[in-house]
Amino acid sequence: MVQRRPSPSSFAVAVLLLLVAVPVAVSAQQATNVQADVAVHFLINGEQRVPAVSIKDDVTIVAEVNNNGMDALNGNLIIWVGTEAAPTLELNASKHISVEPGKMTEVEFKWTPAKSTTKDAPYKIRANVSGVEVHVTTDKGKAEVFVGEGATESKLILIVPIASILGLLFAIGMAMWVLRQKGGSAKMQEVSDAIREGADAFLKRQYSTIFALTAILAVVILAVVGVTVDIATGGRIAGAFVFGAVCSGIAGYVGMYVSVRANIKVAQASREDANRALTIAMRGGAVTGFIVVAMSLLGVSGLYYLYGYGTDPRLTPFLIVGFGFGASFVALFAQLGGGIFTKAADVGADLVGKVEAGIPEDDPRNAAVIADLVGDNVGDCAGRGADLFESTAAENIGAMILGVALYPYFGVNGIMFPLVARSFGLFATMVGIMLVKLRGEEDPLKAMNRGYYVTAVLAAMFFGVATYFMLGDNWFNFFLAGLVGIIASLFILLITLYYTDRDYRPVQDIAKASQTGAGTNIITGFSVGLECTALPAILLAIALIVSFKLGSLTGLPNGGLYGTAMATMGMLSTAAYILAMDTFGPITDNAGGINEMSGDAPKEAEKITSRLDAIGNTTKALTKGYAVGSAGLAAFLLFSAYLDEVTKYTGTVFSVIDIAKVEVFVGALMGAMLVYLFSGFAIRAVGKTASTIISEVRRQFKEIPGIMEGTAKPDYAKCVDITTTGALKNMVVPGVLAVAVPIATGLIVKYAYGDASGSPGAEAVAALMMVGTIAGVMLANLMNNGGGAWDNAKKFIEEGNYGGKKSEAHKAAVVGDTVGDPFKDTAGPSLHVLIKMLATVTLVFVVLYI
Amino acid sequence: MVQRRPSPSSFAVAVLLLLVAVPVAVSAQQATNVQADVAVHFLINGEQRVPAVSIKDDVTIVAEVNNNGMDALNGNLIIWVGTEAAPTLELNASKHISVEPGKMTEVEFKWTPAKSTTKDAPYKIRANVSGVEVHVTTDKGKAEVFVGEGATESKLILIVPIASILGLLFAIGMAMWVLRQKGGSAKMQEVSDAIREGADAFLKRQYSTIFALTAILAVVILAVVGVTVDIATGGRIAGAFVFGAVCSGIAGYVGMYVSVRANIKVAQASREDANRALTIAMRGGAVTGFIVVAMSLLGVSGLYYLYGYGTDPRLTPFLIVGFGFGASFVALFAQLGGGIFTKAADVGADLVGKVEAGIPEDDPRNAAVIADLVGDNVGDCAGRGADLFESTAAENIGAMILGVALYPYFGVNGIMFPLVARSFGLFATMVGIMLVKLRGEEDPLKAMNRGYYVTAVLAAMFFGVATYFMLGDNWFNFFLAGLVGIIASLFILLITLYYTDRDYRPVQDIAKASQTGAGTNIITGFSVGLECTALPAILLAIALIVSFKLGSLTGLPNGGLYGTAMATMGMLSTAAYILAMDTFGPITDNAGGINEMSGDAPKEAEKITSRLDAIGNTTKALTKGYAVGSAGLAAFLLFSAYLDEVTKYTGTVFSVIDIAKVEVFVGALMGAMLVYLFSGFAIRAVGKTASTIISEVRRQFKEIPGIMEGTAKPDYAKCVDITTTGALKNMVVPGVLAVAVPIATGLIVKYAYGDASGSPGAEAVAALMMVGTIAGVMLANLMNNGGGAWDNAKKFIEEGNYGGKKSEAHKAAVVGDTVGDPFKDTAGPSLHVLIKMLATVTLVFVVLYI
Repeated sequence: MVQRRPSPSSFAVAVLLLLVAVPVAVSAQQATNVQADVAVHFLINGEQRVPAVSIKDDVTIVAEVNNNGMDALNGNLIIWVGTEAAPTLELNASKHISVEPGKMTEVEFKWTPAKSTTKDAPYKIRANVSGVEVHVTTDKGKAEVFVGEGATESKLILIVPIASILGLLFAIGMAMWVLRQKGGSAKMQEVSDAIREGADAFLKRQYSTIFALTAILAVVILAVVGVTVDIATGGRIAGAFVFGAVCSGIAGYVGMYVSVRANIKVAQASREDANRALTIAMRGGAVTGFIVVAMSLLGVSGLYYLYGYGTDPRLTPFLIVGFGFGASFVALFAQLGGGIFTKAADVGADLVGKVEAGIPEDDPRNAAVIADLVGDNVGDCAGRGADLFESTAAENIGAMILGVALYPYFGVNGIMFPLVARSFGLFATMVGIMLVKLRGEEDPLKAMNRGYYVTAVLAAMFFGVATYFMLGDNWFNFFLAGLVGIIASLFILLITLYYTDRDYRPVQDIAKASQTGAGTNIITGFSVGLECTALPAILLAIALIVSFKLGSLTGLPNGGLYGTAMATMGMLSTAAYILAMDTFGPITDNAGGINEMSGDAPKEAEKITSRLDAIGNTTKALTKGYAVGSAGLAAFLLFSAYLDEVTKYTGTVFSVIDIAKVEVFVGALMGAMLVYLFSGFAIRAVGKTASTIISEVRRQFKEIPGIMEGTAKPDYAKCVDITTTGALKNMVVPGVLAVAVPIATGLIVKYAYGDASGSPGAEAVAALMMVGTIAGVMLANLMNNGGGAWDNAKKFIEEGNYGGKKSEAHKAAVVGDTVGDPFKDTAGPSLHVLIKMLATVTLVFVVLYI
Repeated sequence: MVQRRPSPSSFAVAVLLLLVAVPVAVSAQQATNVQADVAVHFLINGEQRVPAVSIKDDVTIVAEVNNNGMDALNGNLIIWVGTEAAPTLELNASKHISVEPGKMTEVEFKWTPAKSTTKDAPYKIRANVSGVEVHVTTDKGKAEVFVGEGATESKLILIVPIASILGLLFAIGMAMWVLRQKGGSAKMQEVSDAIREGADAFLKRQYSTIFALTAILAVVILAVVGVTVDIATGGRIAGAFVFGAVCSGIAGYVGMYVSVRANIKVAQASREDANRALTIAMRGGAVTGFIVVAMSLLGVSGLYYLYGYGTDPRLTPFLIVGFGFGASFVALFAQLGGGIFTKAADVGADLVGKVEAGIPEDDPRNAAVIADLVGDNVGDCAGRGADLFESTAAENIGAMILGVALYPYFGVNGIMFPLVARSFGLFATMVGIMLVKLRGEEDPLKAMNRGYYVTAVLAAMFFGVATYFMLGDNWFNFFLAGLVGIIASLFILLITLYYTDRDYRPVQDIAKASQTGAGTNIITGFSVGLECTALPAILLAIALIVSFKLGSLTGLPNGGLYGTAMATMGMLSTAAYILAMDTFGPITDNAGGINEMSGDAPKEAEKITSRLDAIGNTTKALTKGYAVGSAGLAAFLLFSAYLDEVTKYTGTVFSVIDIAKVEVFVGALMGAMLVYLFSGFAIRAVGKTASTIISEVRRQFKEIPGIMEGTAKPDYAKCVDITTTGALKNMVVPGVLAVAVPIATGLIVKYAYGDASGSPGAEAVAALMMVGTIAGVMLANLMNNGGGAWDNAKKFIEEGNYGGKKSEAHKAAVVGDTVGDPFKDTAGPSLHVLIKMLATVTLVFVVLYI
């Protein structure tokens, strides 16, 4: 132990005092030699928290007095809380303490900040032991606590259930309108039925696999959280997980249900009226968009009231995380399985049909053609529906958790704001969708863009209204941050358009390179894919920095992060419209297929569906750019939610993810590794499944005589069956990997660094999530845009450039398109889901590695 | 301001004292109310440093006393330094201070730790103001300073100049031996001369571009460092930069000089004696290996003594950083330019020759064939020579900077250890190289592997010797950490072999997929590329964690980081051997080309060169795996050097890179972005240049009659010239980007976050470097191994599998090989350089954004 060495002056005092009054002198002596510090923790409504309190809170201050000196401390501990400006003290309480040297004691003080005169301000905390002021720390480091008034609950919150229900009604109305449209001829009906049956069969088998996995994981969650926290919490999180999984499944199913029925209506309408064909396809797509957004709102807000009733509203969002994880989990498998199915069928059908047999796309003589058309539905509709459901759910929940940190300023408003913003976005989208109509002979894309711009402008205005009424004095900065998100989403669409549209340099370059063969086509396409990742990354960087700055200029603690959340909310406010555009693609693709296969469509109708199909390709590329952009922007929001969650569980502020530490760097490396390995498996699955399809089609050509002459019908169902089996078998490994790698990394680092301070496991997992997100955003952009560019380069040549169809350039371009297929429709979209699942899986299992 | 509120007890004392002696009472009153803290900084030999001192140091303790109270502080400040165990105090000095409330004063104490009785231990620091103990912080956070004895300089350091000179002599000896070998026939000589002339012409033009850029950058460095630090430091760093650039250029030139002369000797030997052909090729390669490693040792140690003479040895490594940057800068352009040249020529020649005209590889009727053979030399020899020179230089310097942090324990030994370990590795390699001889009819690869294993075992033993004599009591842990590196390098070679060799599943899969066309070949190859990144990443993670643990178990501060440095040193101890294997490739490739083009080679000779060429392909793939692995492992070492550099310049400890901060996350995003964009440009350059070559060869076929019949000679020089122009034009943008992006990110973040505490610019750049490294390692592995696998799948088919040459599967495999070419020989290797240059460019320009 350290020597106590009294200073000369205090020694002189002590000698003098001895002459006068010994007992008093001893007390003075003690006072002079106080060597202590005080660590202050805040219990707010019974939960340990970061020091920020609302005036409505019931606060206990736990002061941990450490005696660092050589003597016993016997005296009074005074805790003082107040602003520098206000002379009236908030708290000035004293309790007697007695601490042995080198020991610690805990003293509790009650504090009712309701008496506070100055609100929305930082209060200093000081402590005084036996008359000597001592060093104070809080969980936030600084000896400070923020006292906020906590806004009263805004009436606007009521819009959430209203919008959800109206959204659902709107979707049902749209669906009924679409189903009421005229069906097609018997031949068309036959094709459409075959597609529907194949899709239903696949979904049935896929869902039984997925829900078996879901059940297993639900039990794991219940066990893990039940043991480490308590069984009630475990039950709630596991329950939310199952609920999220079921909702995600429904979202996927409904999307497909409408789309496999809308396809024939569009095909029929294309024979009568171009405008009507566009409207049916768009409204059919809108059903998915509205179902997804409305169900996500209903699910999240329903759970919020169910789990939150009568408790602290700040605890509930953490319980809802399970909902997001359930949604992501199902979406991952739905997108992977659907993505493998659609592209294996497409690649297989193209290679054996177009390249080997020399028959056109969607030719009824190709045994894999129905599997290809089924794939469009199960991959693009069912898969994407589940994907976008989990996106909206995860982002809603992440933003709500950020709102918790701002509770002292905004009260429940801060938590519910994300849902309110989303509800307004739904109204904006209703208007936009209804406006999609052709004006005269204009290009259908123009009409769709018009609808989008109207939606974006309305969403921006509504966003302003929501911030103004819910976020108090700082509304304007947050409104601007939201605008940053809306503007960023517009730019992302423009960047994606530049890289994937035939009118610009990248696609032109690829088409030109096709003249020298498949090798240069692939090299050029791949270089476009690599290059196209740059601008979105820079845009994301700018959006993050500007929205963070706008938020932090409010001066609120965590205001910067809430600014980035606002940008995310802004970007997502048009999500339902984007979703509608996305589902538009497979409906028109199918309509074209039905026209082609039925063999009775007039040339004019084929031209219309072909143009709509081309637009569908463009919108699909755009929505993928948007999905990656929003995933990147939302990532920051989900990181922060994770940090808050770890803070809540460990009771110490967890806010630094230091990648200069070896174990954290290793976590980051594992994040990038997971993204690459996952993509590798996804793409390989397509290659493997496609090979089996090719062999099957070849077998049928050989063994069933008369197929090529059109006198015998190929066995379509067999191809659908083979594809289904291949897709389901190959989706399990990458899916399980995505769940297992973060958990394993967290556990290994936790036990390898058990002696380190902080939560090394949780920190490594955070780095995994962050760098995994960066790697995922880059790779997803590469794959989506590269794939889109290859596809459109092929289309450009098919329009008669560089020799047109059947030329050497065209053959090269077909190879590029084939390579691009699993990039843009299997690995790319699965990566969107992976990025967000990284955040929810780490949130749910956080108790394992803290 | 805060109210002063004396405690009741001290108030009572004050009243009592008033009755006795007023002046004394005032002094006691002051003592009771001291509210101050002391921040202690260490000036060691005049430089502000992290608190760790050697007993030989001349130390000044600067105590910054902050008066946090309401009264003026008038009294004594006592600073006390000592261990808890030792009763004798190291320092117990007192000075009078007077500080106004809210103000600060600085007091300096001299300290001579040579008196110390306990060494290699942490000492506590306490401060006492007017008799009251106050809170102390140091630059390291904890109130602690480490006092070490500092080992005496080991005699082993002398091995560095000896090994450098012996290494150079060995290289000269090898070169002379190779040049003494028998030349070939006049026809062979003609081809060889054409290659040499083309290579010389390219290098001449390339070097004039590179050195113009170097001169510009040298002036920029001089100006930036001259203005922000001082002109002498700027001059030294700029001088080191130019020196490094020149050495890197020489390394590239020498590698090529020998290789363009060894090729004909190997071709001639292949007609006489297989064993002799192998030995010539291996020794020709060894010249590059030894020149590179010896020159790097000579350059770094020479600068160390030149810049370090008479000053603190701890300052010198920071000045040498310029050397590493110069080396990287030249290597980046050399590798990029050479890589674009070689692959544009290769792709162009293959597409127009093999695919279009249907003539074999290296057929003299192909106008691009000489350009192709020139490319092997300028890309693989000159480019790789410069690349590996910068690797060894950057890693030596990074490890030396880490050694600086351990100066109190190891003295100069810790700084010089990396050079000593490398010197020992050179001796081990000499033995290994001399052992490469065929035993009977065995496969040449076996002989090469035998040489490698001998080198590795010897290197491990020598490493043990070096640690034992230089690193004191902790030698064993550091030895084990070094072994981790050596073992990791073996595993990396095995993993690379698995993914690129024809005997294993990945290459077999690609070959099999070729049957269904180029599309499935590319998809499968790309999925192999994605998948193959996982195992090296996991291996790297394990090596980092284990070596860090081994280092930190020594208990030395920074011991963990030094452990990772040891692993890097271990991995690099066989670098010269790996380099020799790498340069072996282009020599044998050229020998095969000469045999083919001369038209007078017996079948037997062609078989030998063909087998040697295949082995060269394998060793080239292996060495690339090794280069990426060592870059990843060394990255951590260079990060730490960067953190130390920032600490040194700012005077506050800079050790946390918190990617949970928006601006740091943005830096990380920019790192990944740079890697993708850079690769995109590099690959596009190959595509663009290849197109111009294809047009030229087509033109020659058309305009020069008699080429196809062999009656007229194509204009080879024209193709070389076109390729040269294309490569040089296209290397500038990506190269400049690699320098500009880190600097721009640092500057932008610095000014956008000018008000934040710490060094936001430097932190964002650190994240850029770290995540850029992760992204670079992943993408480089994808490209190198993917490319290698495609190449070998093609070779596998050419051996007669799946229909052999001219089959549809072969055509598909040729497309895959064409795509793989720029992956594995342009973008991949350039990424190795980029990763390391990220570290050196940020180190040199750190003064800009701190």
